[in-house]
Amino acid sequence: MDFTNYMSDRVKPMQGSSIRAMFKFLEQADIISLAGGSPAPESFPGRELAEIASELLAEKSHICLQYGVTEGYTPLREIVKGRMAKVDSHKEYDETIITSGAQQAIDLALKALINKGDGIIVEQPSFIGTLNSIRSYEAKLFGVPMQDDGMDLEATEEILKTENIKIIYTIATFQNPTGITMSNEKRKKLLELAKKYDVLIFEDNPYGELRFAGEPTVTIKSLDTEGRVLYFGSFSKILSAGLRLGWVTAHKDIMDKIVVLKQVNDVHTPVLNQMMAAEYMTRYSIDEHIAKIRKLYGRKCGLMLEAMDKYFPDYCKYTRPEGGLFLLYTMPEGYDAKELLNKAIANKVAFVAGNTLMLDMDKPCSSFRLNYSLVAEDKIETAIKLLAEVL
Amino acid sequence: MDFTNYMSDRVKPMQGSSIRAMFKFLEQADIISLAGGSPAPESFPGRELAEIASELLAEKSHICLQYGVTEGYTPLREIVKGRMAKVDSHKEYDETIITSGAQQAIDLALKALINKGDGIIVEQPSFIGTLNSIRSYEAKLFGVPMQDDGMDLEATEEILKTENIKIIYTIATFQNPTGITMSNEKRKKLLELAKKYDVLIFEDNPYGELRFAGEPTVTIKSLDTEGRVLYFGSFSKILSAGLRLGWVTAHKDIMDKIVVLKQVNDVHTPVLNQMMAAEYMTRYSIDEHIAKIRKLYGRKCGLMLEAMDKYFPDYCKYTRPEGGLFLLYTMPEGYDAKELLNKAIANKVAFVAGNTLMLDMDKPCSSFRLNYSLVAEDKIETAIKLLAEVL
Repeated sequence: MDFTNYMSDRVKPMQGSSIRAMFKFLEQADIISLAGGSPAPESFPGRELAEIASELLAEKSHICLQYGVTEGYTPLREIVKGRMAKVDSHKEYDETIITSGAQQAIDLALKALINKGDGIIVEQPSFIGTLNSIRSYEAKLFGVPMQDDGMDLEATEEILKTENIKIIYTIATFQNPTGITMSNEKRKKLLELAKKYDVLIFEDNPYGELRFAGEPTVTIKSLDTEGRVLYFGSFSKILSAGLRLGWVTAHKDIMDKIVVLKQVNDVHTPVLNQMMAAEYMTRYSIDEHIAKIRKLYGRKCGLMLEAMDKYFPDYCKYTRPEGGLFLLYTMPEGYDAKELLNKAIANKVAFVAGNTLMLDMDKPCSSFRLNYSLVAEDKIETAIKLLAEVL
Repeated sequence: MDFTNYMSDRVKPMQGSSIRAMFKFLEQADIISLAGGSPAPESFPGRELAEIASELLAEKSHICLQYGVTEGYTPLREIVKGRMAKVDSHKEYDETIITSGAQQAIDLALKALINKGDGIIVEQPSFIGTLNSIRSYEAKLFGVPMQDDGMDLEATEEILKTENIKIIYTIATFQNPTGITMSNEKRKKLLELAKKYDVLIFEDNPYGELRFAGEPTVTIKSLDTEGRVLYFGSFSKILSAGLRLGWVTAHKDIMDKIVVLKQVNDVHTPVLNQMMAAEYMTRYSIDEHIAKIRKLYGRKCGLMLEAMDKYFPDYCKYTRPEGGLFLLYTMPEGYDAKELLNKAIANKVAFVAGNTLMLDMDKPCSSFRLNYSLVAEDKIETAIKLLAEVL
């Protein structure tokens, strides 16, 4: 049977993430991967969570193995709301729900807001998971270049002036894949632009708590007084990626629709996973835990930059992030990171070629993304040396 | 700010499940609920899962707390594929992936296949989660009445003749909410109709393993030789609802698109939860576990029917299910179950009024659904007595 004609229009042009495809390949090969976006396994509190899960399952199986409420396990929601007070005053019109990772929150918020053909402005390059989710709702994507202090707001306004835009999507802090952080001035200006042209902002902030250098910035959500900003948070990089826990804080009128869509999407996020996170944060200080992760990633990033300064050719430039998981390396115009990747893999090291993170994936791109969170500390220098050999 | 104009067309008319809304209300009140669709908490293997989770988290946190593969944890997929051999020969063109409950599988399969305005035939009444998911993709719903041996196939063919139908959705075994099972003859005929009019079948089978009386039926999937049937399975009623584990078996051409959509929806189903299920089924016999659940539900259903035979008025009729979680009670024409529900709640007992499970929720409906899996055995007679008082 040929199923081509059965497919919905929205999925016909869609392709999976080439990063995740590479993932599977790299798992099997003897290659040092700087490609993924996985947190350091040594940052997972396995022992503590083992004790907690064991107690919950033995004593509260009638709760943790039973259906739960779509909006999330109440004690976890309360803890998250409390933490949101640091980045938002949690205005009375806002609501917070627990989702199956921030990815689900972004996907459902897009489903609630986007009609085919609506415009969305994104940083370029950006996170492929969001780009593909946007594509699945047949929105029109507009990319703006990244500058040292965040997305180019002049280019943003040019698009806002002429196109039918509904949402601006930004990873303002330690952006994926560049590692760049938007300045406080630009955050204010971005919100003003959103007001002027009456569009919403999606502030995706999975890395915000992972600052290991420099001065903290304010969240865009904290500047928002109308509910124009939807804020997406994640436990993936501060507790565990595999538990699939995230949250979204948004105006309750929008949240009502997101909750209906979550109900038909996965009914609710697994109760056990939510209870484990809530219990962990009750028994232990998540802030102390995050402080350790920050230190670890600061050290790993430092080792990588040190090796790059030592082994890499002069004619290239790279970002020097103050937090997060990634840095972006840019070769001179005309070089193609995709071509380099084949050579790198042959030399037993891998990264993400920039073209896959751009709106036009087929166009050659001279940048590539390096991840320093997953690789073991004692392998960083070797990995950079292997990469320097093919550069 | 007024967000009405920001909303996508698809969510504007959508409302949440009134069953789930009632859930929250019932949790707080001193009411015996026959309303939900929750499995019996005494059926959860809490002690066994406590031991397994504890070991996994202590020894394999680098796997169970880390990102995983979108298609699912390989050992669990292999076990599920092995079990699918009982209900399908697992044809070489088929693929099976693990999803965050069967609900997610249905939602993503609809997203992969449905364009606005495409027609879907459903049993009437049917499962509200699927009805709302279908609504969220702006498909056109067509209902066919239920008969004692399953959906009315003459009515089905009338619709197939005149309308642009893409999918027939059926819960063929122990249907939600009627408890009715489609005969083997009708299953064959339904597949023939699907071939004749070139449409797909969604076979949703969360209750199929819970037969406590009568003769087993074949799955529609097992009769399929082309990949025309998508089969949806669930761990919610045989292991745990709160872990959110399900699966879908479908032709790989359709599965390719479902996997891309799952990637942008929740990246993957939580790894810990998948490992727990796989490990449970490796250490213990899930079939022995299911046999116990079958016995429990057979007993609970028997107690409920016995009490109904004793206390309920003669002029009503109700289904006598051979498995699953539900039975349907029908009053004479003209009675409204919604009105009765208010009186029942005042008398401390609750059920689901049939109108919420119909395509036109506003039309009065003389049927209501009773659930016997959740209520404690020693409360069944009391609940039916309380209900008889208001009938």
